[in-house]
Amino acid sequence: MTGTERTTTPERTTPPPAAYTPTERTVPTRAAQKASYDRELVHSILDEGYVCHLGFVRDGAPVVLPTLYARVGETLYVHGSTGSRPLRMTGQADPGLPVCLTVTHVDALILARSGFHHSINYRSVVVHGTAHQVTDPDERRIALDALVDHVVPGRSRDSRPANGKEFAATAVIRLDLNEVSAKTRTGGVNDEPEDLTLPHWAGVVPLRKGYEPPIPDPDLAPGTELPDYLKTL
Amino acid sequence: MTGTERTTTPERTTPPPAAYTPTERTVPTRAAQKASYDRELVHSILDEGYVCHLGFVRDGAPVVLPTLYARVGETLYVHGSTGSRPLRMTGQADPGLPVCLTVTHVDALILARSGFHHSINYRSVVVHGTAHQVTDPDERRIALDALVDHVVPGRSRDSRPANGKEFAATAVIRLDLNEVSAKTRTGGVNDEPEDLTLPHWAGVVPLRKGYEPPIPDPDLAPGTELPDYLKTL
Repeated sequence: MTGTERTTTPERTTPPPAAYTPTERTVPTRAAQKASYDRELVHSILDEGYVCHLGFVRDGAPVVLPTLYARVGETLYVHGSTGSRPLRMTGQADPGLPVCLTVTHVDALILARSGFHHSINYRSVVVHGTAHQVTDPDERRIALDALVDHVVPGRSRDSRPANGKEFAATAVIRLDLNEVSAKTRTGGVNDEPEDLTLPHWAGVVPLRKGYEPPIPDPDLAPGTELPDYLKTL
Repeated sequence: MTGTERTTTPERTTPPPAAYTPTERTVPTRAAQKASYDRELVHSILDEGYVCHLGFVRDGAPVVLPTLYARVGETLYVHGSTGSRPLRMTGQADPGLPVCLTVTHVDALILARSGFHHSINYRSVVVHGTAHQVTDPDERRIALDALVDHVVPGRSRDSRPANGKEFAATAVIRLDLNEVSAKTRTGGVNDEPEDLTLPHWAGVVPLRKGYEPPIPDPDLAPGTELPDYLKTL
């Protein structure tokens, strides 16, 4: 989407910019051509995954933990036990907790003739910002549903919602998408021209993706069929 | 391996302990039953992957970047351009760069009858420590070969080693495995007993793993066959 195209849709009075604004820390010091700030690309990478690596600083040292996330518009939600460290830390300080949230998909191995040009095809998004605890109950409900639906679209409507005790035990933090960049590597092998005659096999090895057939819980209520949204997962 | 077993092998004068020593920051504040310090489990999780998320602190804020890693004994190696941020930062300070290196494998979706008990089967390792630039050329060569072989065992012997220019452009950092923990979730659905009669499908959806068939580079030298180590990848 270009700026020119957006001006032809005047009914959208506040169209979202097509790209995030680069900042000093979202411009890489190298391989800058792999970086992108395109909003649709960022959204597509975020929406394809559901496990992120959340970084924060504790006692001056970095901590990186894997956790589930979901995107709702320009906000990411992460949840956890009210007793877990990052969730407690966002609650302790009004200004919020500085975090870096990173999502990475590995797509293929790139096997070059030279060791140096071995690589990985990948797509990643790095989000810098400040995480805040969500206190509004309505927003927390929306976030919890989104976290389930982000993994399996349609699932939240086909499961029991959190009861009062469960709801109280679950903290939700939000991180707005402002300082964001994507980085991707696609394509094939990039060997040096003089290496092309070397006798080493070179090429691309794509990763397998997707899911194996679902395994029903042994205690499934009689007559419970596999829902359509799982047949097409 | 237990302590008793180790005393029966006196020929190993300095047997490695079977477990890493827990520290304040490797003991989780919740779900402590999922944490393990078992050395073999940690090694198996590290050896199954090759992409980690490396966290460090820059200008007081966390940064989390995906990168390749390899394990050699009790050391992890990460490499990158000498111009990349974490690599430059380890070189700037003699004391090294405090990092947190995390590796996560997602194994299955756990779809419970209640939203609250939805989960993921996963295995992760979190390493806290100080990263140092590797300056010894022999150790750097070993690390670069290990980084290639960690992704595709046997590959370093079937590719051109780095030449002088490539070698000079590649920085290697090391992180020793001292402060380490693993965390895993295995098994099936853990719904509340009173939810078992709900009409929602529940069960386990395993992730597909492995690789698609290798795609040869179009410029492959004539007669170059797919090597055995790729047929069994």
